[in-house]
Amino acid sequence: MDDLRSGEVAVELQPSAHVAARYIGEIRTPWTHRRDCPRQGSLDGPECTLEVLPIWQEALQGIEKYTLLEVLYWLDRSRRDLVLQSPRSDGQVFGTFALRSPVRPNPIGTSVVRLLAVDGTRLRVRGLDCLDRTPLLDIKPDRSEFTPKAPPKPGVDGHPAAAV
Amino acid sequence: MDDLRSGEVAVELQPSAHVAARYIGEIRTPWTHRRDCPRQGSLDGPECTLEVLPIWQEALQGIEKYTLLEVLYWLDRSRRDLVLQSPRSDGQVFGTFALRSPVRPNPIGTSVVRLLAVDGTRLRVRGLDCLDRTPLLDIKPDRSEFTPKAPPKPGVDGHPAAAV
Repeated sequence: MDDLRSGEVAVELQPSAHVAARYIGEIRTPWTHRRDCPRQGSLDGPECTLEVLPIWQEALQGIEKYTLLEVLYWLDRSRRDLVLQSPRSDGQVFGTFALRSPVRPNPIGTSVVRLLAVDGTRLRVRGLDCLDRTPLLDIKPDRSEFTPKAPPKPGVDGHPAAAV
Repeated sequence: MDDLRSGEVAVELQPSAHVAARYIGEIRTPWTHRRDCPRQGSLDGPECTLEVLPIWQEALQGIEKYTLLEVLYWLDRSRRDLVLQSPRSDGQVFGTFALRSPVRPNPIGTSVVRLLAVDGTRLRVRGLDCLDRTPLLDIKPDRSEFTPKAPPKPGVDGHPAAAV
């Protein structure tokens, strides 16, 4: 891990792993090299496919009602130990948590995508920015479209002062 | 795992774990019981604190420039095997990926929070919905405020057709 740019800082990570996440599928995109990936996804970007593992098929029930989905994925080709990064390679550095860089302690990418079609366990979407075959972690309705199905909790939802 | 509501369906998960995520800190909130948590966070909700582990302190550099942050956390008290869920306990079910329920294969919560203050490795924020001492996974500038620091890639960013 010696390929640091000027000013970048890495920390020494202990092997401890706290959380065992699991792949729920993979993402197919047109981008096979990092240099081709857009820096941010666009809802008008190229069509991509979320390929969900068959064991989760029933979990997709009702997803077609949403136009915008939040997609979480594991950027499995990113190093995880940088605390300061130089995106322009010019010596100017930014803290990792002040960037949306794929390089972070938990390289989880999040995008809002437009759902075009559901075909079994395959979801056609626009809005991604990741490499082809990136592991998929989660799919949720985007918060802008979602209303909780259960009734609000009296004294909690919509009454923040009462919740303290 | 026999506490299913009417209509709910669980799958049998294999022990395989693909991804070792790590806690980068924890979240302090006013809610110590699930019944007290709001169903969705609000930017006007009660003040909470992101307590980042000291090893990541430098990674916070520059974060104070942002008003809205995206926060990812691990809902460590949620089961992970439900594919159909009945939020109202009335027999009507929804697929897990059509809900923002904490119960999901990877119980990762995402919220957009308003940053109030940075005090060393403690960030005071509003907008969370999770239990006190929920493990923290990631912090990023919200996409609504963030512009990539590196220059756009010719033929890729803003030119989606060319990227296919």
